Order: sequence, then structure tokens, then C-alpha cells
Amino acid sequence: MTSTTRVEAFSDGVLAIAITLLVLDLRVPLRDGLHTSLAHALARQWPSYAAYVTSFLIIGIIWVNHHAVFGYLGAADRMLLFLNLVLLMFVAAIPFTTSLFAEYLTAGRDAHTAAVVYSGVMLAMAVAFSCLYAWAASHPRLLREGVDPAAARASVVRFSAGTVVYLATIGVALISAPLCLAVHFVIALYYSFQQVRLR
Amino acid sequence: MTSTTRVEAFSDGVLAIAITLLVLDLRVPLRDGLHTSLAHALARQWPSYAAYVTSFLIIGIIWVNHHAVFGYLGAADRMLLFLNLVLLMFVAAIPFTTSLFAEYLTAGRDAHTAAVVYSGVMLAMAVAFSCLYAWAASHPRLLREGVDPAAARASVVRFSAGTVVYLATIGVALISAPLCLAVHFVIALYYSFQQVRLR
Amino acid sequence: MTSTTRVEAFSDGVLAIAITLLVLDLRVPLRDGLHTSLAHALARQWPSYAAYVTSFLIIGIIWVNHHAVFGYLGAADRMLLFLNLVLLMFVAAIPFTTSLFAEYLTAGRDAHTAAVVYSGVMLAMAVAFSCLYAWAASHPRLLREGVDPAAARASVVRFSAGTVVYLATIGVALISAPLCLAVHFVIALYYSFQQVRLR
Amino acid sequence: MTSTTRVEAFSDGVLAIAITLLVLDLRVPLRDGLHTSLAHALARQWPSYAAYVTSFLIIGIIWVNHHAVFGYLGAADRMLLFLNLVLLMFVAAIPFTTSLFAEYLTAGRDAHTAAVVYSGVMLAMAVAFSCLYAWAASHPRLLREGVDPAAARASVVRFSAGTVVYLATIGVALISAPLCLAVHFVIALYYSFQQVRLR
Repeated sequence: MTSTTRVEAFSDGVLAIAITLLVLDLRVPLRDGLHTSLAHALARQWPSYAAYVTSFLIIGIIWVNHHAVFGYLGAADRMLLFLNLVLLMFVAAIPFTTSLFAEYLTAGRDAHTAAVVYSGVMLAMAVAFSCLYAWAASHPRLLREGVDPAAARASVVRFSAGTVVYLATIGVALISAPLCLAVHFVIALYYSFQQVRLR
Repeated sequence: MTSTTRVEAFSDGVLAIAITLLVLDLRVPLRDGLHTSLAHALARQWPSYAAYVTSFLIIGIIWVNHHAVFGYLGAADRMLLFLNLVLLMFVAAIPFTTSLFAEYLTAGRDAHTAAVVYSGVMLAMAVAFSCLYAWAASHPRLLREGVDPAAARASVVRFSAGTVVYLATIGVALISAPLCLAVHFVIALYYSFQQVRLR
Repeated sequence: MTSTTRVEAFSDGVLAIAITLLVLDLRVPLRDGLHTSLAHALARQWPSYAAYVTSFLIIGIIWVNHHAVFGYLGAADRMLLFLNLVLLMFVAAIPFTTSLFAEYLTAGRDAHTAAVVYSGVMLAMAVAFSCLYAWAASHPRLLREGVDPAAARASVVRFSAGTVVYLATIGVALISAPLCLAVHFVIALYYSFQQVRLR
Repeated sequence: MTSTTRVEAFSDGVLAIAITLLVLDLRVPLRDGLHTSLAHALARQWPSYAAYVTSFLIIGIIWVNHHAVFGYLGAADRMLLFLNLVLLMFVAAIPFTTSLFAEYLTAGRDAHTAAVVYSGVMLAMAVAFSCLYAWAASHPRLLREGVDPAAARASVVRFSAGTVVYLATIGVALISAPLCLAVHFVIALYYSFQQVRLR
């Protein structure tokens, strides 16, 4: 078992980079390819801005929750390091799914595909996060001194509600891609002010 | 409420990445597409270099001011975390607006559009920053021990002068895009030596 | 000789960035170029996802081992800094070899070339890592107080077994590129739960 | 005046990102555009690999020297922060000049242009670094307790010898671009084992 300080620093780095790489999804319209005005070309890119804002908020909240969860931990074993790596693997993929979502948001049938992929990666991220938290909560030796294992386990159940929410967004994705993005935005906004905590 | 150490580390990461990603706006001229010499092709890219230097200075100053403001804080609540995320969202968008500005700086009517977008994102960043500082200053429990709330509130007013300056650059953008970039450069240079501080 | 704290922080930064840059290898299919459906286009990109997951795991494990090795060190001399830089140089190249491997995984004869390059860079990374560890283990003044030099030297031998494994993957690369990627994935999974440690 | 801890952390971040972004200069040959074999196409990219290795070493050494210089500092004033930002601005541009150098290394007359730009940015970086060090050494209140101002000033002179070396590479650039790259590599290798230090 190792201290969690370094795991947190590495995770912070990956999260900070993933959130900043989202800007690469904002593309400068080609000067030669402008049919009308730049203002018009930029306005047509609204899906990119909407997806940028939504994903930025989501990764920001993942960061806040990551710190909240690791605040209850006192040590990390190999399984925890592995689960954390899987979590980061899905988070690091968000700039890709964001770009995909923005590009195909108004593409008819393909829009549903892009929305399902976006929601699916969020779901996978939430499942990995819940597994990580559940693993820690069920191994008291990993918890920080003073943290009540029973309270931690109860907190895992509430925390895992997020996975149900993301599962539901896959359903919304099949109905309407723009609605799906809007739902993700509202979820992100809601969680901005509701973070995981022990009772 | 949480400690501000981690918020600062995460913000530092985002700022360091955003400032370094500016280099992606500097493009290597296509070897096959060279009509004259490489020297000529590079010289024609002067808007990219000017925008790179200006945005680099601006993000550098945001970093300095971010540290100055967080130096007065002792704790962070959820609203502060949220406002900080909004601030970072605009900062992380600067490599995009910089690239846009450089590409369209000499594009006639579209140059004004690009300059307005560039100045607009700077304005939004300054507004988010002022809101963050004002929120902290009006909640004494967030301030570090020994920081005078009245002095902090007075400092917010002076700090917010920056938003007026960025508002003015939107006006300049409508007159002349190159002049607008020059004004941003002068502002950045000025603020390099004038940082926020309590009296 | 200098403290190892800063070397670790810098190395952590490079590792976190390299692992996150892997996402740039995941490409959004061009909307105009879709012959069939987006789902079909995404499914055809399976080599990119397989390579992303494998390389993500590998860099994650390099990070874990980097910390394990530096956990035994108390100081760094110039040669150690230089060997660490060479190690990072190969790690930072992994997003490139990953992209190359994914692009050519199904390209007949060229697939072997891409697999050899991928395995070759991993081998070079492992050799650099072994040299770094061997240098430290053979210079007791670099070891942390309480670390037994003899145990460290014995650990180097076991650690270097990894280089033999990577050498073997070059052989596999000549037989089958997809098999080579699968072997790299299995190795990464194995090492996720088996890290370097002193006896 | 502020503590140097945060300046160092921010600078470390920029240096780690700039060194890792060098990988973006390594391009995967287009699968459709292959005239012969992938092996042949990769071999033809040798200037990219040579430039990658050279720039990686150079940024690594800048990092080592940055730490050495800041190890003598106890505080930072505004001018020092500004000079550090200018230094980072040139370092962050290295991925661009590296890509430019690699692309045009074998391009006849244009190769000289690319080599001059590469050497010129290195010279500007070295000048900024010397100014930063000279400013600190000539303001004893910025030095860490126990550091002899006279020894620091003497060290600046030796440190600034690097600027003369980089000035000379501009001359070499006009003679031969590949030779210029080789000279940069040798300089980097030399400085890997010779760092700034007080006597």
C-alpha cells in the first residue's frame, strides 16, 4: 500500500490536461472556405460551444468529487490504483467524445450514435468511479483514520445514483441528441452544487 | 468548505496548459505550398506571432492575479469552486480565440468579428474573475485570517476596473482589429507591473 | 546532487501529459466522408480504441513503477537526471507509436513495421528505466537511508526482466501485429498488479 | 515580493507540457499516400526524430538550470516574474521551431531559414534566462539567505556564456542546416553534464 498523495497529484494532472484539451474541439473556420461571413460560420458552430461548456463542467465536477472521495482515503492498494487508472482512461477520452458529439449533433440518424457514445463513456466513467469508491469503502484499512466505514458504505450507495442518471441519458440519446446534451448540462449544473459527502 | 490548496494546484495546471497550448496556433508553412521563400511565408504569419505574444502575456498575468486573489482566501465554498471553474473555462478558450484572431486579423470585415470574439472572451473572463473575488470578499469566512474584509471589498472595486478596460477593447475591435490587438498587448504589459493588492 | 522531489514532480507532469495526449489518437470520422453510418465508421476504428487502452495502461504502470523506484532514492546526481530524461523521451514518444500502430494494424506487411516500432520504443523505454535503476542501485549514496544496497541490486535484476519481455514482443510483432498488441495488453494487465518492490 | 514556490511550480508545468508537446511533431505517414513501404516512409522522417531528440534534451536542460537558478532565490519581484514569463514564452515556442526545422531540414535554401529561426529562438531564450539571472544576482534581497551576492554575480557571467554559444549556432545555420542541428545536439549533451552552480 502507498500514500494517496501522489495518486491525487497524478490524477489532478490528467484531469487538468483533459479539461484544457477540450479547447482543441473548437475549430477556427477555414478562411478560404467561408461562404458567407465569419460571424455566420462561428454561429453555425454552436454545437461545439455547447459541448465545450457541458464537458468542461462535467470534468470540473469529476475533479471535485475525486478530491472528496480521496479525502476519505488514507492509503491506496493495487486494485485502487488500477480502478483509478480505468477511471482516468474514460475521463481522458472525454475530449474525443465531446468533439464527436459536437460534430454530429445535427446529423440526423448519426446524431443518436454520437449521443449514445458520449453518454456511454460518461456511464463507464461513473461506473469506474463507483467501483473505486465501493472498493475503498469495503476495505477499512484504506480509509483515513476517523472515517466511519459504515457511513462510507452508505455514501457509496448515494454516490452510485449518478450511474443511474447517466444510464438514463443513453435513453434520452435515442430520442433526441440536442435534448441529451441539454440533460447532461443540467446534470452537471446540479452536481456543481451537490457534492459527495459523508453524513 | 474545503482548503484552497487543491483548487490552486488544479487552476495552476489548467493555466500552465492553456498558456503552452498557444504554440499550437503557430503553424509550420506547408513545404509543398510555398510560392516564394520560407522566410517570406514566415514573415506573412506576423499576426500569429503578435497574437501568441499578447495572449501569452495575458494568461501569465491572469496566473499572477489568480495567486494574488487566492492569497487572501483561507477556504473555498461551492459557489467559489463553481465561479473558479467558469473563470478557467474562459481562460482555456483563449488558445482558440487567439488562433481565430491571428487567422482573420487581416481579413477585412471578418477581422472585426474575430477581434470582438477575442475581446469578448477576455471580458467574460474578467467578469468571472471579478465575481469570484467579489463573492470571496463579501463572505468573510472565506478570507484568510488577518485579511481585513473592508480592505478586500475596496480591492474588488479597483480589481473590477479591468472589466471596464476589456469592455472598451470591444469598442476598439469595431474600429480596427490590429489596433485592438495592440491595445490588448499594451494592457497586458501594463498589468505585468501592476497587480492586485490590498492597501 | 539534488533532492529527488523536483525530478519526480517534473516526471509526473510529463507522464500525465503523455497519457492524456493519447486521446488525440482517437479521431472523429469526417462527416462529409461517411460512406455508411457513423456507428459503422466508429466500429472500423477498433484498432485505435485497442491501442488507446493498451498504451494508457502501459504509461499508467510506468508511472507506478517510476514512483516505486524513486521511493528508494534519496538523491539524484547528473547521470541519474540524464537517464531519467532519456526514459521520459521514450515515454513521451508513446502517443506517436500508438497512433502509428493503430493506423497500420490492419495494413498487411506495413502492420509488422508499425508493431516493431511500437515494441521497439517500449523496449528502449524499459532499457532506459533499467539503466536508471541499476545506476541508482550501484551508487549507495543515491539510495534513501535504510534501503539495503544489496537488496536494491537484486531488485534491479528482477526489474530488468521486463526488458526481456519487451524484446520478445518484437518477435511477436514479426508474426502478427494484432497478436502483438494483445500481448502488450496482457503484459500491461499483469504488471498492473505486480509492481517492483524490494524483498 | 512573493515566494518563489509557486513560480517554480508554474514554470515546471509549462516546461513539462512544452517538452511533451514535441511528440506532436512526429507525424504518422498517411496510409493512403504511401508510395513504397511504411519502413521507408518512416526512415525518410529522420529529421523529425533528430529534432525531437535534440529539443527534448534542450528543454530538459533548461528545466535543470531553471531549478538551479531558482535554488539561489528566496523571493521574486515583479520584474523577475515578467522576465520568467518572457523566458517561458520562448521555451513554449520550441515545439513550433522544432517542427519547422524538421520539415525544412532538407529543403535547400529554406533549410538555412529554418535553422536560423530555430537557433534564434534558442538565443532569445538564453538571453531572457541570463537577464533573469542577472536581475536576481544584482538584487541581493531576492537571493536566498546564505547565497553570496558576489559569487552569484560571477556565476551570471559564466552562465551567460551559453548565449554566445547560441549566437554562434546562427552562424552555423547559414553554413549548413544539418550541421546546425548536430551542433545543437552536442551542446545539449555537453550541458547535460555541466550545470550552473556557484563556486
